[in-house]
Amino acid sequence: MRILGIDPGLRRTGFGVIEASGMRIQYVASGTIVVPTELPLYQRLKAILDNIREVIQTHQPDDSALEKVFVNTNPVSTLLLGQARGAAMCALADSNLNVSEYTALQIKKAVVGNGHAKKEQVQLMVQHLLSLNGLPSSDSADALACAICHAHANPLLQKLKSHEQSQLSHQSRMRAGRLIG
Amino acid sequence: MRILGIDPGLRRTGFGVIEASGMRIQYVASGTIVVPTELPLYQRLKAILDNIREVIQTHQPDDSALEKVFVNTNPVSTLLLGQARGAAMCALADSNLNVSEYTALQIKKAVVGNGHAKKEQVQLMVQHLLSLNGLPSSDSADALACAICHAHANPLLQKLKSHEQSQLSHQSRMRAGRLIG
Repeated sequence: MRILGIDPGLRRTGFGVIEASGMRIQYVASGTIVVPTELPLYQRLKAILDNIREVIQTHQPDDSALEKVFVNTNPVSTLLLGQARGAAMCALADSNLNVSEYTALQIKKAVVGNGHAKKEQVQLMVQHLLSLNGLPSSDSADALACAICHAHANPLLQKLKSHEQSQLSHQSRMRAGRLIG
Repeated sequence: MRILGIDPGLRRTGFGVIEASGMRIQYVASGTIVVPTELPLYQRLKAILDNIREVIQTHQPDDSALEKVFVNTNPVSTLLLGQARGAAMCALADSNLNVSEYTALQIKKAVVGNGHAKKEQVQLMVQHLLSLNGLPSSDSADALACAICHAHANPLLQKLKSHEQSQLSHQSRMRAGRLIG
């Protein structure tokens, strides 16, 4: 399964694509979408939309994961960040991808093993886990880390889902039994 | 010129379409996009995106205007609102529409003549200005008011732009003159 991770922002949106097979992961691509700040807001959002679409078209991911943004104490910044995040989600959803969301804490825990790891530790662990020749940029590393977090969470989620389903079907059999009885 | 006004929100997004010719305006359509709250966020944003696209396809506006949302004191609500607004802007920009933004104060001033008018006054004035048989819903009224505000601002903006351009070309003639001299 190919996973696209996105670290959204109005100025810089990181993206990272990995190939995951069970717990084994492999690097595919990564980069940063840089949007000119002098454009009006709707054109900046359109640039995020179009560039993420291009990444999807090029790398054909099967699934996607988004970093839950930090809620800023400045409400104006929070609103701007929300709009960038809305544009990123629209690009993913509009390409018929499911979008899973993870907090920075969850991502750091999955990648470094410590929810309060520093940016540099995330970059180093992403480089190590994906056997990259160089240190990825901070934006790329965050997006790749998000994809890795999803790759690790996904088999567990699948297991949980099938476990829940078997529990449910057991319950519904029980309930059906009670009804019939 | 046909103008689409949008009052964005994650649960309810109002839309209103008017035909404007100079200062004369005419009602075309209006309504509310209601998005089920039980869907995951990315599907809610996709619903806003798809429904606004449908409105655009049906009514073929030439221009669009968006209400600047109220920045909530609750950062989580502000982030959610920002995401809905991002989805609405993406729908407009993705259909190659320009997006002009107006604050609630500007819209109320344009429609009622008082920036601090109450919701009901906006509904009544929108009904009056567009000669509607019944009172529009609050969401529709806000979206229509936004379109009306843009219709009134637009001729002034155009005039200002052509004035600025003539000033600019006068200045560049002056500058060119100085350069040559």
